[in-house]
Amino acid sequence: MVAIPINPMTKTDCTTRRAYQSDSVGIVRRQYVHFETPLALRSGETLERFTLAYETYGRLNADRSNAILICHALSGDAHVAGYYTDDPQEKPGWWDDAVGPGKMFDTDRFFVICSNVIGGCQGSTGPASLAEDGKPYSLRFPFVTVADMVAAQRHLVDFLGIEKLFAVGGGSMGGMQALQWAVDYPARVGSVLFIASTPRSSTQNIAFNEIGRQAIYADPKWNNGDYYHGPRPEKGLAVARMVGHITYMSESSLEQKFSRRTQNGNGLAYGFDTDFAVESYLQHQGQKFVERFDANSYLYITKALDYYDVADGYGSLQAAVARAQCPFLVVSISSDWLYTREQALELVDALRDLEREVQHEHIEATFGHDSFLVEVETMTHIVGGFLDRLWEKQKA
Amino acid sequence: MVAIPINPMTKTDCTTRRAYQSDSVGIVRRQYVHFETPLALRSGETLERFTLAYETYGRLNADRSNAILICHALSGDAHVAGYYTDDPQEKPGWWDDAVGPGKMFDTDRFFVICSNVIGGCQGSTGPASLAEDGKPYSLRFPFVTVADMVAAQRHLVDFLGIEKLFAVGGGSMGGMQALQWAVDYPARVGSVLFIASTPRSSTQNIAFNEIGRQAIYADPKWNNGDYYHGPRPEKGLAVARMVGHITYMSESSLEQKFSRRTQNGNGLAYGFDTDFAVESYLQHQGQKFVERFDANSYLYITKALDYYDVADGYGSLQAAVARAQCPFLVVSISSDWLYTREQALELVDALRDLEREVQHEHIEATFGHDSFLVEVETMTHIVGGFLDRLWEKQKA
Repeated sequence: MVAIPINPMTKTDCTTRRAYQSDSVGIVRRQYVHFETPLALRSGETLERFTLAYETYGRLNADRSNAILICHALSGDAHVAGYYTDDPQEKPGWWDDAVGPGKMFDTDRFFVICSNVIGGCQGSTGPASLAEDGKPYSLRFPFVTVADMVAAQRHLVDFLGIEKLFAVGGGSMGGMQALQWAVDYPARVGSVLFIASTPRSSTQNIAFNEIGRQAIYADPKWNNGDYYHGPRPEKGLAVARMVGHITYMSESSLEQKFSRRTQNGNGLAYGFDTDFAVESYLQHQGQKFVERFDANSYLYITKALDYYDVADGYGSLQAAVARAQCPFLVVSISSDWLYTREQALELVDALRDLEREVQHEHIEATFGHDSFLVEVETMTHIVGGFLDRLWEKQKA
Repeated sequence: MVAIPINPMTKTDCTTRRAYQSDSVGIVRRQYVHFETPLALRSGETLERFTLAYETYGRLNADRSNAILICHALSGDAHVAGYYTDDPQEKPGWWDDAVGPGKMFDTDRFFVICSNVIGGCQGSTGPASLAEDGKPYSLRFPFVTVADMVAAQRHLVDFLGIEKLFAVGGGSMGGMQALQWAVDYPARVGSVLFIASTPRSSTQNIAFNEIGRQAIYADPKWNNGDYYHGPRPEKGLAVARMVGHITYMSESSLEQKFSRRTQNGNGLAYGFDTDFAVESYLQHQGQKFVERFDANSYLYITKALDYYDVADGYGSLQAAVARAQCPFLVVSISSDWLYTREQALELVDALRDLEREVQHEHIEATFGHDSFLVEVETMTHIVGGFLDRLWEKQKA
């Protein structure tokens, strides 16, 4: 394996304003590592070489025992926390509330890693990357699964010289990856944080993803995936994002946030532009998304979500989960109708049947699937507490 | 008012096979009535003249006291029951299980009417109809509301010479119309059957409709509504239908029907065509729909759904509902997440606060919103029973 760190592993320019905020990881840099090792994929195809974009926060300790891998969801990336610049307008990473000094992933104690998944579009190899012939892969990119994403991450963890991760965790597709880590590489995983996730995509999960894909296929600018030198299928991707977004929120959170409020505040407009504030909100979500995401990546990653069934390759959920050797924290959310309590319980029940160490927390929260990002205090208590106890136990 | 019956009011060619089925209304004919009366719309605009397509089943009795108006949902039409031909391949009307001799709407006793809503595309005046200039209205068609649909139906009921409807009922948008009838024309309504419906569209309801509209807008063939002389926005409309369709089914009914079964039955295909059976099902639903529905009608009718709040024009739900003078049957369905029990209860509670006669039935059923069409035995018991009791009471 030849691994070439493209950027040095480093973080934090301590001269900046943000570095002084006690709870911020400050300024961080996206790093890249390129692997010339072929990656054998579940589909039977091979990715001959690949790059992973990643970020790290905190310091790896001397015995390399304090590393936590955070895995991101469908639309996430490696930028979990901190800022790239000192611009006060810049938004922090997608789970900044979770990673930093004293936060649920306490960077005073832990070394936190996150990498963009293969198939993604934020620095790791994906359909927009250049293939051998110097042209974007487009639909020539092989299908990837959650297991393949995890196999690629294993190369990164090797490269960082970490034998065993203290924890692997994530919400949504991040939880799937965490579970897959424990099943595929049981000796490398100290604990799993499985948050607002499912051990297998349900029929309804697949159905929603398929609608998003159909919206992209329907956009003539998609051009069968070949659009990198022309206009992009922004309208199709925006509709796909709107479909996804509605599944991340609960009915009650939409009601609380927008109710039937009109956009102009003056009764009905009787027009096709926008009557209700929620319409404008969805359009805005779609528009923001197309500025940062690649439509082909959306297709590939939603396919990986659909394919996800931890039983695959092991015969059954029970047989797969039996391979895991570490404690699990499973968090489900009362208003999450994308990945429900019942789906989480499939995993919890399998672990309990196997007499494995599992802590299941079902959170009463109104924000739907996104609650795991929003309910910071509760999540800090649960996730931070779980990690603290494990850490004390390991030291003892 | 000048009303011109385009086809004679009639039904049933008794020489056909189907007429001999004891529980079928047999062969029926779509009828039309054209009104030269201007219809003042809630938006402030006026529809100068309009046609309604309608069907009837059973016979109007001598004192014209046995008429039931069934109102259809978003994608429905006037063809509730029976067949247009003797072709054994032909599918019957959309609620054939409900209308016929001995069925929940018993045509041995009742005269059943259903008309296509204005804004629709199955014979009543809508955006595909020709305007004054001989060209389709397209987006020149005025915005219509549920109250406007009902106002148009009132002209039909007048034309049929019916002073007071024994009942007005329907599921989904049909329930909204039934409620609006009782509020806007209390003296004309003997009872309301409000089934799997809501007194006002929720934020989530609006959000799903907006996504469907965005999918249509995103299709370049939509051409800002001007497509009647060229290719139609089939891809956009198909995506809109898929979004809608998923809200009509419950998670568990999707799971039961398809689970993670693959389309070819041989494991994952690793392709963008179809891996899972549920994908093929959704694509099929989309495809079937574009063959029978007009994209602009979809836009106008979903807007009418979004606009629906029975409080509009009356100040509050309480004030609106206080106008109604008749008994109500309210049916909600346990697995219906489009129009929930809580939404139905808003109406039930308002009626009970006003000490009105209301029977609320919450059905345990797994098929989601569509359960009202599927759970024939339960619905026959509840709806048929309600109508029977009212009928006996009226006779007494």
